Order: sequence, then C-alpha cells, then structure tokens
Amino acid sequence: MDKNLLQQYNEWEKRVAAYQMALSLIEVDKQTVAPSAGSRYRNEKAAILSGEQFSLRTDPAQAELRAKLLAMPDLPFEDRRRIELTDKKIRNTMVIPKDVFVAYAEFRSNSFVAWRRAKQENDYSVFEPYLKQMIEYKKKIYGYRNRPEPIYDQMLDDYEPGMDMVQYDAFFGLMKERLLPLIQAVQQAKPIEDSFLYLDYPVAGQKEFMETILRYIGVDRSWCYQNETEHPFTSSLCENDIRITTKYVPNNVSAAVFSTVHESGHGYYTHNVAPEYDGTVLYNGISSGMQESQSRLCENYLGRTKAFWEANYAQLQRIFPEQLGNVPLDDYVRAVNVSRPTLIRTRADELTYPIHVLIRYELEKGLFDGTIPTEGLDRTWNEMYQKYLGISSLTASQGILQDVHWGEGLIGYFPTYALGSAIAAQFVHTMRRQIDVDELLRTGHYTDIIAWLRENIHKYGSLYNAREILKRVTGEDFNPEYYVEYLENKYKTLYAL
Amino acid sequence: MDKNLLQQYNEWEKRVAAYQMALSLIEVDKQTVAPSAGSRYRNEKAAILSGEQFSLRTDPAQAELRAKLLAMPDLPFEDRRRIELTDKKIRNTMVIPKDVFVAYAEFRSNSFVAWRRAKQENDYSVFEPYLKQMIEYKKKIYGYRNRPEPIYDQMLDDYEPGMDMVQYDAFFGLMKERLLPLIQAVQQAKPIEDSFLYLDYPVAGQKEFMETILRYIGVDRSWCYQNETEHPFTSSLCENDIRITTKYVPNNVSAAVFSTVHESGHGYYTHNVAPEYDGTVLYNGISSGMQESQSRLCENYLGRTKAFWEANYAQLQRIFPEQLGNVPLDDYVRAVNVSRPTLIRTRADELTYPIHVLIRYELEKGLFDGTIPTEGLDRTWNEMYQKYLGISSLTASQGILQDVHWGEGLIGYFPTYALGSAIAAQFVHTMRRQIDVDELLRTGHYTDIIAWLRENIHKYGSLYNAREILKRVTGEDFNPEYYVEYLENKYKTLYAL
Repeated sequence: MDKNLLQQYNEWEKRVAAYQMALSLIEVDKQTVAPSAGSRYRNEKAAILSGEQFSLRTDPAQAELRAKLLAMPDLPFEDRRRIELTDKKIRNTMVIPKDVFVAYAEFRSNSFVAWRRAKQENDYSVFEPYLKQMIEYKKKIYGYRNRPEPIYDQMLDDYEPGMDMVQYDAFFGLMKERLLPLIQAVQQAKPIEDSFLYLDYPVAGQKEFMETILRYIGVDRSWCYQNETEHPFTSSLCENDIRITTKYVPNNVSAAVFSTVHESGHGYYTHNVAPEYDGTVLYNGISSGMQESQSRLCENYLGRTKAFWEANYAQLQRIFPEQLGNVPLDDYVRAVNVSRPTLIRTRADELTYPIHVLIRYELEKGLFDGTIPTEGLDRTWNEMYQKYLGISSLTASQGILQDVHWGEGLIGYFPTYALGSAIAAQFVHTMRRQIDVDELLRTGHYTDIIAWLRENIHKYGSLYNAREILKRVTGEDFNPEYYVEYLENKYKTLYAL
Repeated sequence: MDKNLLQQYNEWEKRVAAYQMALSLIEVDKQTVAPSAGSRYRNEKAAILSGEQFSLRTDPAQAELRAKLLAMPDLPFEDRRRIELTDKKIRNTMVIPKDVFVAYAEFRSNSFVAWRRAKQENDYSVFEPYLKQMIEYKKKIYGYRNRPEPIYDQMLDDYEPGMDMVQYDAFFGLMKERLLPLIQAVQQAKPIEDSFLYLDYPVAGQKEFMETILRYIGVDRSWCYQNETEHPFTSSLCENDIRITTKYVPNNVSAAVFSTVHESGHGYYTHNVAPEYDGTVLYNGISSGMQESQSRLCENYLGRTKAFWEANYAQLQRIFPEQLGNVPLDDYVRAVNVSRPTLIRTRADELTYPIHVLIRYELEKGLFDGTIPTEGLDRTWNEMYQKYLGISSLTASQGILQDVHWGEGLIGYFPTYALGSAIAAQFVHTMRRQIDVDELLRTGHYTDIIAWLRENIHKYGSLYNAREILKRVTGEDFNPEYYVEYLENKYKTLYAL
C-alpha cells in the first residue's frame, strides 16, 4: 500500500476538520453567549469559512486520491471505512450543480425564517408555500444522485444508513399494534399523582442539585462544560471537548435534570469514541438513530429508574424540603414516569413519544409519495393526533409548527428519534444480562455503566452502522420487540394493568 | 480608478477577516469556558486555520494587487490608508524566510511554557536562556526588514507607529524628573485610610453592583457580553460583538469594577469605530498606545473621580451596609485613589504606574543595545525597583517573572502602557474644555462622554496614528506635560502637599 497517499488523505482530512472545529464553535457560541447584534457579521464570516471548507471538501484532486486509495486491496479496514463514508457524503454533495446548491442554501435560510414567523404568528399558511417548495427542492437535489430508490428512502438512509420505508413501516406498524392499545389502557387506569413535580422550584436550588447529578453521572468540566440555552443541545468538538446545554424551568423540578442526562448521553458517546478517530468521519459521522439511542438510554433507561433516584433523591429532598419532604421515593419515581397524551413531542413521556414520531413519519411519507398535500397539512396533522392520541391542537404553533426540522429541510430525520429508543431497549436488554445496572446505579457507579457502553458501542464511533453494531453487541439484527416489551412491562406495572 | 481591482482587494480582505473572526473566537472561548482537556485538539486545528490565513495573507498575487492599487493617484484616502497599513504589516512578515518563521513560532510556544514554569517554580534561571534566545530571534527576524533604524526602534514602532527611543527617552525622562519627587513626597505624607476597601465583599454582592455599573456606563449585552477570567481582557470581533472579562476578588470591593470600566474603554473604542471599517485594518489595527489611552481614560479619568461615585456610591453602600455604611463618599473616593509603591504593575496606582513601565523600558533598551545582560536580570530588576520605588521583590514570580510579555515575545510593547495614560491626559484636557464631564458623570450621562470620544477619536479606528489624532483633537502634537500636570494636581491635592 502506498503510505504516502494515505498521508496526503490524512493531511486533507485534518484541514477539513479544522474548519469544522471553528464552525462548530461559532455555532455553540451563537447559541449560548454571543452578543445578538454581532450576528450579521459573524454569519457572513462563517459563511465564508463554510465556503472555503466546501471548496476543500469538493476538490476534484481529492476525489481522485480517494478513488486511488479505495482501489487498493490492502487498505486497512478502518481506513477503508472512513474514506468510503467520507467519499459517499462528498459525492452526494458534488452531484448537485453549484447554482442549485447555492439557491437551495439561500432558500433554506428563508424557509427557516418563514417557519419562525409562522410559529410566532401561529399561522401555518405563512409556512405552507415554503414546505411545498422544500419538498420540490429535496426531490430535485436527490434526483441528481440518480439512484433507483425512492427519494424518501434515500433521505431516510442519509440519517440512518441501512433504513428504508419497508423497515420503518414494519417498525411503526408494531408501535401502532402494540402501543396504541396500551396507551388507551393507561388513559383509563387510575391516574398517578404528579402535581408535586410542578410546584415552584427556584432555579438556584435546581442548579445546586444539578451539581450533584453531574458528579453522580461523572461529567467532568475538564472535558465537558454545561451552559444554558432555550433549546438544549450537545456539540462535540473532539473527544475531550464536549459542550452540553440545558434549560431550567422554574415550575418543573425534573425538566433540567432529565434534559442534562439526555444530553450527557450524546456527550459520553462522542467523549468515548477512540481518540484516534478525532476529526474524522468515524468521530463526527455517527448516525442520528445511534446518537439518539445513547441519549435516550441515559435519560430513560437509566435516569428514570428507581435505582437512579435511590442514589440521588435524598439530596433533592434536602434542597427542596417544602416541596418534596413528604413525598416518598416511590411516589416520586412513579411521578417522573407518568404517561399522558400531550401535544409537544419534546416533552412527551416514553410511552407516547414514538406515536409523535409515527405521525411525522406518516406525514413525510405521504408528502413524498403525493398522497398528502401540503395544503391543509395543519388539519391533517390534527386529524392524526386525534386518531392516535385522542387530542388535537387548537393552535398551529403547538401543532404542526412546533418543530424546526421541516423548516430547515431536515426531512427523514424524525423517524430516527423513535428508532433510537428502540435500539436503546435492545442494547439495555443485553447490558442487563452482563452487568447489574440497578446495583451500579444505586451505589453510585454510574460511570461503570458508561464504561460498558464505551467498550461495546461508543469507542467504535461510526466504524459500524447501527445494525452491524447491534449484531456485534446483542447477537441479533435490529429487533423492536425489546422496545415494545420494555414499554409494556414498565407501564403495565406502573399502572397496575 | 479601477473599481474592479478594489473590489478584488475587498473580497480578499473579507476572507482574511473570516479567519480572524474564527481565530479570535477560539481564543476567547479558550480563555473563558473551553474544557481544558480539549486544548491539544483545538490548538492543532487553530494552528491549521492560522496557516491557511497566513497563506492567504502572504499570497504574492495579492501583494501585486496592492502595489497596483497604491500606484493609483486617485485612490481615495481611506482606501489608501487601509491598503498601506495592511501592506506594511504583510511585508514585514513576508521578508522572513518560512523556515525561520516556523521555527520562531515554535520557539515562542516553548518560551511561553518556560516562562510559566519559571513563574510557578519561582526560578528566573528556568526562563533566562529563553529570554536570551528571544532577543537573538527578534534581532534576526527584524534584521530581514533591512531598515536603518535600530532594531528596538522598529519594535517600538510596531506597537505605536511613530514612536522611537528618542521620544520615549524624553517621555520617561520627564516621568523621572517630575514624578519620582512626587512619589517620595506622597510616601512621606500622612497615609490615607483605605483598609475598608479590603474587607470581606461577597462576590454575589459585587455582581449585583456590577449590574448597576454596566447600566450606568451603558454597556448593553446585545453588543457586549461580560464573562470571568483569571486575567481580564477585551476581545473585539466586530463593532457589534465585543467580549469583556473581569475577575472578582472577594476581599477587594473595587478591583472588579475598575477592571470592568477599564476593559469597557477598550470595548467602546472598537464598538464605536465606523461600522464600514469592520473586518479591515482600520478596525483591528488600532495601536496599543491608542487602545490603552481609552481604557485608562475610562478607568482613571472617569472611574476614579468623585463625580462618578456620586452617581453610584449610594448603591454600593446599600449592597454592603456593614462594610461601607459608615464610610462617607469623600473617604471612599480618596481610598480608591491612594498611591503607594507596590510590586505588581497591573495593580499599581495611577501615580506609580508609569514608573513600573519605565523600569521595563530601560531594561528592554539595555537588553537590545547590549548594556544589560539577561544573566542576573532578576537582580538588575530588583535594583531598579529599589532605586525608583524604594522596594524590591523577594521572589522572581512577583518580580521579573510577573508579566507574560517577554515570554511571548512582546518586546517594545510595555512603553505603550504609560504612553496611553499620557495620551488620555491630553485628550481629557481638551474634552473638559468642551463638555462638563463631572456634571455628566454625576447625573448619569456617562454615555454622553462616550459619544464625545466616539466623535473625536473612536470612529476613526486606525485611520490616523496617535500623533495625528492628537493633533486633530487637541490642536497640538503629543505633549506629556498634561499627564504630569494631571498627576501633580491630583496627588498634591489628595495628600495636601
């Protein structure tokens, strides 16, 4: 093998990563502390750097170099994977004529602004023409790839390689079949008291408790900071530089905690990727479903267990004696697991969450196969919420306009949110056979659980796709049965069904 | 004039500015919130971006373009100035052979690390060989410019265009002649009671008071944020994105306030530069002396006046009733203006400050003309402190190693600190004839004073050098007599001499 060619590739990859580091940091800064009046200047300069990165990424000499490398039979597996993944992403960009690419980028900015205005003004008709055009743009842009698969399948594959409508239909079919009856049964069961979660919880106390939680989950400021934003997120610059954000809600004791545990799941994933993958697609190319599997695993499969709170609840009671002093641990744990149909996906409980995603998946599918028009989609939305969850939104802002994704052109992304929860369930099933998760949670050994995730999942980054890694870890292909069983067991016990 | 050439220049300038924005942000992030363990990765990527910017800046085609533009007789004045300034800076870099440039950059990093270790270990001998080599490097690097002026003169000119040893000798000569006797007289006068400034002042209260001060000085978070760092600084990304930092000292009521007012002086300067200069050398090329004139003007000539505190002291007393409730305004104002010889430059009072700078200037001059060796410089340092201020340091950390500048190769920079104070005095002399500064301070119209500075100084950025702008504003060349008179009047009154 020609080591010199690989060296050239590595040098180029490092340069691309340098722009990525700067662009990520500019975005984190913007979302957290940047003075608002400077945004025009910063955006203009960030766009220039994006452009320089784009030129570097799409350099034809580099495409030739990658082709040469991939033609070498003795190229090591890891190198092959990282060059192949990179090449695929770049080819998908390079097929788009530059004028179309530029026009789409500009349209996407306008579409985002239209979505934001529509949401503010609670008026879907402001956004509808943009959504219509977004779909046309997607068809056009994906059309250049000249692939035999339906456009929506290609979009699904971009966010979760290996997934398509056939598989998602089966997955969401199972959700409908098994979860909808369970949701109905829970609705008819005796409600669980949880009003004590929504008293006045001063933010200073919540922050004090957050320190306890960060120590408990082992998040160390030397490699991970925490900041505040309206919409919490995680940004990973490299294995040793993770930024997670949270939002404190004064009348909700658990929102910030679960949000932080969720984001720390993303953070740990990228913290634990093998350090030598830093700056490569093996680091930053982890699929959305895999990402979400780890955040939801931490939030729900660890964070909402009794064992987690056995280790932490006394401290929470100490900080908020008036609000929680008389609430026993069991009542608190039941309360943070209550299920009831609500309108907002990001605040949905574990049981109804996949139905929120199912609705979006069915809408996206229909928008692309032409069976659902963008006109009147706000009504279609409400009809589906009514049908599946027995509720509907009086306002478009709380309904079809609640999520930014479509406005930004993220179509085919939503399904990975439910997929992630299902992947997590399958991982957890295996993990619980290998280590005593509850005992570790109870005794303050949360990081031992993270160590299991690191060794089995995290360290590989995107070296394997979701189905490959599931096979390696659990011994079988993706199987959503674990997810349904987990939810059935959990909620039947919780609601004594 | 060929508009097209100018357009090409502007495009190039914007690209250079894009890298600068990213590099500044990476630096601010590093100094404030970045996880420490990520520094290796970030530094490596920042170095790559620096390299890309360097290639862009030193592109020979651009040098040709600048030459063509500068040869046009009808090139407008502002354009000429910004292209000339840029060209000069780049030429001074381009004359250095690349291998020397790279070796020096690496040496500088090592030298900084050596300085830091020397300071930690309180051992000048760890740093001495680096200082010696730094001077050799400076001679070598400046040698490539092939100019007739002495090397140290060229270095002085880099930080404050138009200044040289002849002028600084005259300036510091005046300081010696007039300030040393005054410092002695103050030492022998009745001491002013100021111990109440150094009681326990909880940081929470200091932060509350800081909000009052920020409102009073008109710093608005939409264009200027405030963060905390060990060593306060200001970073200006563009006119509408300024980052200032401060440090709260629990047993010092005024340290954070004066530091913030100081940094806000830098911040206002760059906030008020004409917006169309954003991203050009007219924005970011303001000389060190001019920069310091505005920060010191705000800190000392405004912030330490009785009028400033007439507007704010009651609030400070309200927050700290136990510590300051019985301290009258006059006593407080006298206390924050106390002068006594101390070891640390950054904490020196207004009167002794220029002497700290004088000592560094005389040492730098001697190091370059060969009359002072690096060997034993810690002892030479102490002898000069003993001679001028009657004190000397028992430790190198508090003496010769206190400042980072020489370790980082910033030689010729120190003199601008004292120069800035003197320039400020000359500006203030004119300003006080044109507006009623004390009345504006007393009545909460601080920003009207800033408006005067904006109209007379800030808006020009680096369109004029210090001496030109002094001439425009005050009608005469730089005249340090105003500075000495200001200090004499102030301290003779304060100490009833």
